[in-house]
Amino acid sequence: MTVKVGLIGAGRMGGALAYHLAFSVETAVFTAIADPNIEAAQSLAKKCGVTDTYSDYHEMLTRDDLDAVVIVTPTNTHVELIKAAAAAGKHIFTEKPLALTLAACDEAITAVETAGVKMMVGFMRHFDPAYRAAKQKIDAGAIGNPVMFKSIGRDPWRTSLEYAKRENSGGLIADMAAHDFDLARWLMGSEVERVHSEGGCLVFPELGDVGDIDNAVVNLKFANGAVGNVDVSRNAIYGYDIRTEVIGSEGSLMIGTLQQTSTLLLTRNQVCHDTIPGFMARFAGAYAAEIRDFVQAIEDNRETAVTGQDARAATAIGIAATRSLDEARPVLLSEIE
Amino acid sequence: MTVKVGLIGAGRMGGALAYHLAFSVETAVFTAIADPNIEAAQSLAKKCGVTDTYSDYHEMLTRDDLDAVVIVTPTNTHVELIKAAAAAGKHIFTEKPLALTLAACDEAITAVETAGVKMMVGFMRHFDPAYRAAKQKIDAGAIGNPVMFKSIGRDPWRTSLEYAKRENSGGLIADMAAHDFDLARWLMGSEVERVHSEGGCLVFPELGDVGDIDNAVVNLKFANGAVGNVDVSRNAIYGYDIRTEVIGSEGSLMIGTLQQTSTLLLTRNQVCHDTIPGFMARFAGAYAAEIRDFVQAIEDNRETAVTGQDARAATAIGIAATRSLDEARPVLLSEIE
Amino acid sequence: MTVKVGLIGAGRMGGALAYHLAFSVETAVFTAIADPNIEAAQSLAKKCGVTDTYSDYHEMLTRDDLDAVVIVTPTNTHVELIKAAAAAGKHIFTEKPLALTLAACDEAITAVETAGVKMMVGFMRHFDPAYRAAKQKIDAGAIGNPVMFKSIGRDPWRTSLEYAKRENSGGLIADMAAHDFDLARWLMGSEVERVHSEGGCLVFPELGDVGDIDNAVVNLKFANGAVGNVDVSRNAIYGYDIRTEVIGSEGSLMIGTLQQTSTLLLTRNQVCHDTIPGFMARFAGAYAAEIRDFVQAIEDNRETAVTGQDARAATAIGIAATRSLDEARPVLLSEIE
Amino acid sequence: MTVKVGLIGAGRMGGALAYHLAFSVETAVFTAIADPNIEAAQSLAKKCGVTDTYSDYHEMLTRDDLDAVVIVTPTNTHVELIKAAAAAGKHIFTEKPLALTLAACDEAITAVETAGVKMMVGFMRHFDPAYRAAKQKIDAGAIGNPVMFKSIGRDPWRTSLEYAKRENSGGLIADMAAHDFDLARWLMGSEVERVHSEGGCLVFPELGDVGDIDNAVVNLKFANGAVGNVDVSRNAIYGYDIRTEVIGSEGSLMIGTLQQTSTLLLTRNQVCHDTIPGFMARFAGAYAAEIRDFVQAIEDNRETAVTGQDARAATAIGIAATRSLDEARPVLLSEIE
Repeated sequence: MTVKVGLIGAGRMGGALAYHLAFSVETAVFTAIADPNIEAAQSLAKKCGVTDTYSDYHEMLTRDDLDAVVIVTPTNTHVELIKAAAAAGKHIFTEKPLALTLAACDEAITAVETAGVKMMVGFMRHFDPAYRAAKQKIDAGAIGNPVMFKSIGRDPWRTSLEYAKRENSGGLIADMAAHDFDLARWLMGSEVERVHSEGGCLVFPELGDVGDIDNAVVNLKFANGAVGNVDVSRNAIYGYDIRTEVIGSEGSLMIGTLQQTSTLLLTRNQVCHDTIPGFMARFAGAYAAEIRDFVQAIEDNRETAVTGQDARAATAIGIAATRSLDEARPVLLSEIE
Repeated sequence: MTVKVGLIGAGRMGGALAYHLAFSVETAVFTAIADPNIEAAQSLAKKCGVTDTYSDYHEMLTRDDLDAVVIVTPTNTHVELIKAAAAAGKHIFTEKPLALTLAACDEAITAVETAGVKMMVGFMRHFDPAYRAAKQKIDAGAIGNPVMFKSIGRDPWRTSLEYAKRENSGGLIADMAAHDFDLARWLMGSEVERVHSEGGCLVFPELGDVGDIDNAVVNLKFANGAVGNVDVSRNAIYGYDIRTEVIGSEGSLMIGTLQQTSTLLLTRNQVCHDTIPGFMARFAGAYAAEIRDFVQAIEDNRETAVTGQDARAATAIGIAATRSLDEARPVLLSEIE
Repeated sequence: MTVKVGLIGAGRMGGALAYHLAFSVETAVFTAIADPNIEAAQSLAKKCGVTDTYSDYHEMLTRDDLDAVVIVTPTNTHVELIKAAAAAGKHIFTEKPLALTLAACDEAITAVETAGVKMMVGFMRHFDPAYRAAKQKIDAGAIGNPVMFKSIGRDPWRTSLEYAKRENSGGLIADMAAHDFDLARWLMGSEVERVHSEGGCLVFPELGDVGDIDNAVVNLKFANGAVGNVDVSRNAIYGYDIRTEVIGSEGSLMIGTLQQTSTLLLTRNQVCHDTIPGFMARFAGAYAAEIRDFVQAIEDNRETAVTGQDARAATAIGIAATRSLDEARPVLLSEIE
Repeated sequence: MTVKVGLIGAGRMGGALAYHLAFSVETAVFTAIADPNIEAAQSLAKKCGVTDTYSDYHEMLTRDDLDAVVIVTPTNTHVELIKAAAAAGKHIFTEKPLALTLAACDEAITAVETAGVKMMVGFMRHFDPAYRAAKQKIDAGAIGNPVMFKSIGRDPWRTSLEYAKRENSGGLIADMAAHDFDLARWLMGSEVERVHSEGGCLVFPELGDVGDIDNAVVNLKFANGAVGNVDVSRNAIYGYDIRTEVIGSEGSLMIGTLQQTSTLLLTRNQVCHDTIPGFMARFAGAYAAEIRDFVQAIEDNRETAVTGQDARAATAIGIAATRSLDEARPVLLSEIE
């Protein structure tokens, strides 16, 4: 059996996923690409051996032979696209975040449930070999009970000012810590119950001008009593720094590295190595594997690895952590609706 | 010139400092040891080539030829000893923490100021080569403005239940994060203004029985806007884990290692190394260097590297962070008196 | 312009290169596969979207529309295949080693030169990001003059006894150190002039029964006076261990890592990580990049990155090093014909 | 019981050992120092609390109360001093190398045996925690049978031209690889049977002017069939680089590190750390421990950890490896007399 897949969104990230869809997923047939920018759609289609392109995704969704869609568009379009795809009976892969509000998440989840299609959200770290190895060890009991979660998500550059606006990105914490909040639930096996954030605009004053910050720390309290902290930064000029620790009662895990290439340059009294330039260098394999797993979930008719509910939960933590920053107090997840 | 030094407290930690005093500080003349347990004092004196021992420290303090004392006794005796030593005109080195309450800290500081003697508090990490190198690089501008402080202090074992009681140790956060709070002020060059803690008794229920916890995370907000987080744990069974990161606007620093011995054992499909067993293995050199610097400060008639005010400030953060845990809210340092 | 490529050899390694040819080289059109095992050819063709398969490679070579062939067959067939492909006017990529004797190398090189086609030999480390970074730094003068070359090539398993026979693999040194001998010339910028080997059958006595050894060290003396050493082993049970050092007059380089996944497991008093399981895990990206570069060289009508002469030189070092082992004396490269 | 020890040689290295003797060995009574430069002897005596100094070591040796001497003088004086000390009935610790010729080694060994005193030679790596841990793991069978020995000994600077002369240092290989040759025997548990060296004067032409080289590689063949290689260099400008690998049938060991301080500086796209500046920084603890063990061996009336025969064997390998370089051929240890 093969799964016919259409892509909505031929931008940079869409191109990356398209590449994996075309070349890494044997059972997928990459069939169509939709983008209002039809030249972008056509150019990408040519590279990937895809024959059909659409400027209007609605038209693509009318095809009966299409089994699934991959949505890689700005966050504020996700819900509308998901509703349309679900109504057309297509299985859905959407890039994270699902949406910036819980109401929007719920709208998408309801549409998917009503239509009886599958939806997977692109928290690709579940498919990164390092994180996957950690999850397997935790599940195998290698560290006993996880009791503390520490995670770092730092970018080596400032985001665009337009994107930084809270209506577009959700703000620094929601935007950058989304993966960490997702990892927190996944690796700790418990829901986050309360959060407390501190943050500031410390390096890029222009981010403050549009209402954002550039560094933050977020304390986590889990439902099972475990504790945690996530830090995010826009000024890790040394490189893309993604690391996680899980401290357990019988052992611990550390995931992540600063080094990209295994080459050391040794000069007078020092040793230097390079760093990881960005998320595509770090997680290219994970993007390929998640798309493969999405197609496999359709073939196997099983639940996807990261569901709409998972995405909603990560979004809720992001909203709570941002409210904590705004209101300078701990915020319970139960407050977020 | 030489400095004649007496030691008060011949226990395990006193023995360690005594050793450095005897053998690593050329300009110190290690002259006397006082301990109610006179056998302990005599035994240590013999090892260190010290001739005079006292069961009552008051008697030792009456000696005119003694320039300074090193106090290595339980925390709740510090203030009384400091007051007596100051009144006798002796310079004072005291192990950390100075005291568990600000009132007690102030009593000690006042006594020292009134007597016009010097006091240094044993935050030995200032003298560790790794932390010292970090401080020098920060001061040299190597990382621009420090904007985030992350620090880890994890023990591989549970403390004694007696010590765990809040009246003895101050509780997990005050006890274990004291060094991190001190580092926060020292490396960031700014006071801590607000803290928020989450913690729990997750691994050792017997600690909960005596009112303590075993894991905690503490968010920090600095007066200059910078942010930070400290985590502490009693169940780092893998080893003594002391690491700090300072993220700056133009670079960052990471301090600390998990590895004690540079020997790797490579067996089927894996590579393993040992870890640092405890604080004496990690900071032996720093203990030697701090005692040396204390004696040098007396000789040079200059301010000590870590003053009573520094110790008071670290204590205040510990009290605030513990109150935050108790009251489940951020606590301003200005609330602590 | 596109380059139409046919593959000869649909075995395990052929499958790996086929995959890269199909999915990683945009300008290549992967057109045909030849293998006496026609089922293997057909199965691979299906996976790669290739339409034409042949049980006899001669038939494939008669196609006028084919620009190039990729040869991934047992070493002892290389020369015959290269001669046939060259005679048919096809550009040639062949897996290493080119051949086990200099006479065979010369036969292949002459055929290629006579036909005026390009030939590239699969020393893929030239395309590994870590080795490439090292080469670039050397060329940029970052380490001054390279004066010592150290390289390690260790497998975590015993090869098959059939393959171990000298007529098939060339013996341990020629087989396993071929890449290192190639790197030696490439990174040091000088020819190897003299070699001396020590080796033994120390772990797998069955290798001795078929005339092979399992561990060896090879001293190198370069024409420019530089020195070096290569070690090879079949019993690196901890993992696939590929590392190289280049010591220069003004700095040095270290290339290689033992760690595959950036996950550490911390248990009682120790920290462990995994290792690299084998050459496909370590060099997958390099295989993709070398095939891409081969196609690009055809398009650009330029010299390939690793020529027949390069392969001949590496083979000569392997022969000399093996003779040194047999005769327990240093062997000059000038002795090898 | 205590052991009264006198030091012969108050130079830089003598000062280092004196310090450990004075402050790290509880059961030793550091009694006297002899040096023709009496000011040096007196200055060192003052620092170490030693009362008696001598410009003529013969005079010191006449003291009946002296149990042992520590000899830290130029290599060419060792034999004469050892003979005098042995004749006076003193136990002897001598810095390595024992002597540069086997005849001289034998003269010393015979004198010691005749006098019935103990002699230990300062191969301090036996007392380094990393090497000691490796030895213990090998003895415990953690790596099965050791089959390959790889060792690196690189200095970050050129030695003095006077010292470089072969009559003073034995030449690069004998001088720098002495520790590695000693480790080879100790860790592999087998004698070296044959060596082959390549070397050159590649960075410091002035070394060539006095007959020395600056880089070399030495192949080793052990009596039990195992193989090995040692490289030495004077131009490891990045730092003092001491590393050893032992590859076994069931596992392997790697000993050594490039990093001195656990501080990383992360700047734009790179991570850097410092390196180990020299042998005193790397092996300070080992020097202390070896002197302690020498005194303990006297107290326990047991064999010293590194005997005259061990030193003779290491010297023989150095002579053979140097002859191999001179004669461009493998040299059997049995050739060396």
